[in-house]
Amino acid sequence: MKKLNIFLLLSLITVNLFPQQKTAESTELYSPVPPVVTPGESSKPPSDAIILFDGTSFDQWVNDNGNAVEWIMREGCMTIKPGSGNIKTKRWFGDCQLHIEWRCPTPSVKKEADTNTEQGFGNSGILLQSRYELQIFDSYNYPDYHNGKPIYVNGQAGSVYKQVIPLVNACKKQGEWQIYDIIYMAPRFSDNGRISIPARITVLHNGVLIINNSEILGSMNYIGLPEYRPHGLKEPLSLQEHGDPVSYRNIWIREL
Amino acid sequence: MKKLNIFLLLSLITVNLFPQQKTAESTELYSPVPPVVTPGESSKPPSDAIILFDGTSFDQWVNDNGNAVEWIMREGCMTIKPGSGNIKTKRWFGDCQLHIEWRCPTPSVKKEADTNTEQGFGNSGILLQSRYELQIFDSYNYPDYHNGKPIYVNGQAGSVYKQVIPLVNACKKQGEWQIYDIIYMAPRFSDNGRISIPARITVLHNGVLIINNSEILGSMNYIGLPEYRPHGLKEPLSLQEHGDPVSYRNIWIREL
Amino acid sequence: MKKLNIFLLLSLITVNLFPQQKTAESTELYSPVPPVVTPGESSKPPSDAIILFDGTSFDQWVNDNGNAVEWIMREGCMTIKPGSGNIKTKRWFGDCQLHIEWRCPTPSVKKEADTNTEQGFGNSGILLQSRYELQIFDSYNYPDYHNGKPIYVNGQAGSVYKQVIPLVNACKKQGEWQIYDIIYMAPRFSDNGRISIPARITVLHNGVLIINNSEILGSMNYIGLPEYRPHGLKEPLSLQEHGDPVSYRNIWIREL
Amino acid sequence: MKKLNIFLLLSLITVNLFPQQKTAESTELYSPVPPVVTPGESSKPPSDAIILFDGTSFDQWVNDNGNAVEWIMREGCMTIKPGSGNIKTKRWFGDCQLHIEWRCPTPSVKKEADTNTEQGFGNSGILLQSRYELQIFDSYNYPDYHNGKPIYVNGQAGSVYKQVIPLVNACKKQGEWQIYDIIYMAPRFSDNGRISIPARITVLHNGVLIINNSEILGSMNYIGLPEYRPHGLKEPLSLQEHGDPVSYRNIWIREL
Repeated sequence: MKKLNIFLLLSLITVNLFPQQKTAESTELYSPVPPVVTPGESSKPPSDAIILFDGTSFDQWVNDNGNAVEWIMREGCMTIKPGSGNIKTKRWFGDCQLHIEWRCPTPSVKKEADTNTEQGFGNSGILLQSRYELQIFDSYNYPDYHNGKPIYVNGQAGSVYKQVIPLVNACKKQGEWQIYDIIYMAPRFSDNGRISIPARITVLHNGVLIINNSEILGSMNYIGLPEYRPHGLKEPLSLQEHGDPVSYRNIWIREL
Repeated sequence: MKKLNIFLLLSLITVNLFPQQKTAESTELYSPVPPVVTPGESSKPPSDAIILFDGTSFDQWVNDNGNAVEWIMREGCMTIKPGSGNIKTKRWFGDCQLHIEWRCPTPSVKKEADTNTEQGFGNSGILLQSRYELQIFDSYNYPDYHNGKPIYVNGQAGSVYKQVIPLVNACKKQGEWQIYDIIYMAPRFSDNGRISIPARITVLHNGVLIINNSEILGSMNYIGLPEYRPHGLKEPLSLQEHGDPVSYRNIWIREL
Repeated sequence: MKKLNIFLLLSLITVNLFPQQKTAESTELYSPVPPVVTPGESSKPPSDAIILFDGTSFDQWVNDNGNAVEWIMREGCMTIKPGSGNIKTKRWFGDCQLHIEWRCPTPSVKKEADTNTEQGFGNSGILLQSRYELQIFDSYNYPDYHNGKPIYVNGQAGSVYKQVIPLVNACKKQGEWQIYDIIYMAPRFSDNGRISIPARITVLHNGVLIINNSEILGSMNYIGLPEYRPHGLKEPLSLQEHGDPVSYRNIWIREL
Repeated sequence: MKKLNIFLLLSLITVNLFPQQKTAESTELYSPVPPVVTPGESSKPPSDAIILFDGTSFDQWVNDNGNAVEWIMREGCMTIKPGSGNIKTKRWFGDCQLHIEWRCPTPSVKKEADTNTEQGFGNSGILLQSRYELQIFDSYNYPDYHNGKPIYVNGQAGSVYKQVIPLVNACKKQGEWQIYDIIYMAPRFSDNGRISIPARITVLHNGVLIINNSEILGSMNYIGLPEYRPHGLKEPLSLQEHGDPVSYRNIWIREL
């Protein structure tokens, strides 16, 4: 009878056991444990970010020739010195989250730099891996602002230059600080040099989604279609000098 | 000789003309013109957002039965009343950018609601299209916080519940306000009800990328694998009541 | 002692039980059951395919004006009658697997139709949803064939015309039958008419992968960049008449 | 008057010139030139394929321990010798197009190998990068065939084992040769070992699309959820020995 009880007990256990074949625990994972990151307040860098510019130093940057940066640093930001050329980071990056703040010059400042051309409107750009350009431009209230002379929509602020038109125009006025929060996935090339996985980009402009996981078609070309040419997984981040005294501050990056 | 001149001139023009075949203008687009959106300051809604909760009214919400919301509204936020059930929006949404702020209860508040179980740790969730859950949980300093009893990593804050482990843990302490900025692409189903384009999600948690364009595998299941069941392009947004007095504020959404 | 045995047994079971929380059954699914399809032999249509052309009838087709097809049907294939215009299916399609066989005219046949221009080289095209063109062209042994006058690579056989360069050139000689096996995912548009999920295409040309899940950039434009204009989820499939007597046979499609 | 003519001519040219700013040539590309590949007839390898098995030699293969393959080669195919273990290629592969033909044993052959269990139904598998399994199984006329004892749908032929349910069941009878045409994109990992771009797979089974660019969730696990563990861009291709005398022939691969 004791023996019987054991079998009864066992059968009971079995009965309970089978409905548990799909238990809640079956779909629980315990690794990999996400590393703890302390977020920053008000767009300040989280604890795992590489700080590329905090307003006090050009330590992370060189100009395109590898020499010292000639841009101007004052009041916690860097401002383009027209004619001084692009700058780029010493470190190289691939997939990343990039936070960057920028400001277009006000008209009075612009007049000092250059005068009445379209090119005076705060033209600069973020060159991801030194070749894929997220456009910086004074596109506030476009197209009315430019006296009826609009820029092409794949050239306005927030475009992947000459490739992707932003979903909306979330620009602030000249003289106000603006934010790009960028998620960038670098392209992958095959052994034979052809593109195998195109780059992708997502951009929040002042908190508003303007590019939604768009495919990048190739390197920025001013003339001609964009084209991919093979490069390494990591490349420097560049900022474009285009003759206008655009300012930057609070630049940080997280490698993905 | 005049005739000759004409031909000379023509050939000259031709010479100039051919290098211009690929002009800068060739890659410029003038439509569609991105609509102008005024961004909000400090996570406040941009001008084209639908405000789902601004701290003053439950107008946009009903409970799961379609009746009046029983959650508590005070001091500019809504707090879950344990036992009162999920709530959902009256409007239905598909692809969207969603901003939502949430706060886990502090220990003292938790004691009032329930006591010593894991389930007291600020458990709630954002149910995209009422079925794909982005987890809300008190995962601050996980795994140390819970006295050595960790939650599974695909169940901590910022996970797509039981599907996607967040890249990092960017949680703030209980009692502090936290932000999710979500980009959500709804799934598409074929005529026969099978999934044809799975849903995708990107999440910034307190400004830190924690989910990077991940594929959603199906509806949230507590027990069993996630599975897709066909539904419309737009569905309500739901917030989960899971027994804990989690609070929400500043909820806005932009249709993509 | 018996009692002790029971507890021993129980503890043993428990020990065995917990490692079984993740059982093999936990990750087994029993629905949805994939429908049974009888595959076709040698590129013939599987049982669930819609047969668009089997060599005996134009029943599934009209010309672009909705009138009767003027192309020539003989010997189990259809051949373009130059000047007669494009043709399109009566049924409309979205996401699909499309099998289509095509043949470029041999030089002697070409001479009848037109003479010595590039346009005589078997130019036609498959217009997915009547607007996204997978190019048909005589690109055999390109670039040598055309007496040193090559076609642009995003215009050769297997290109998404003026958008995507094929990975390789898997063309057969003029006069030989060639096969495209196409997987096409239709674009999705947002309520405001902007593209939200671009179309994607994969192509096997004579069994060789020539386009690998590439994004389509918009409607085919001969002049100007491709652009998306909103349309329905389903549209007719068109075949392009471009002056050359290209032939088609064994066309079938499976809705995805 | 001649002079006038010249200016008339010039103005005419100018008028024609400006509308030509976007010329047909603007969107033509001349590089990269796709390499010429001679396609194979009737599923035979194209000229750029690496032939992994042509029926005459195990030269490209070793068993899992790196020793000589013990599977049986006769009549132009290789047949699994139960108990002899998996085999793998000496060469390593990443992104690829893979063609492979397989045959489930007929019942009489099965009886020799093993008898009446589910596991006798032609169980084997293609282990992409030795860890992501495309299932081989006798799923003909599933679910009726197995006397009402169906296999789980994410375990039938054409499934990504325990991950992706095939869209349709395109199986042929036991004893008949079947074809998988596979497009596989290898996963990419970040520096910290987390998955950054999941693997993707497309499969044509006997010419019918059964997996449409699906994301692979991780390594095949018989028990437990699939999980990604970092590995190199290239890994061997393996064929699984699972106790059944499944046969293979005509295996070729193209690196993408």
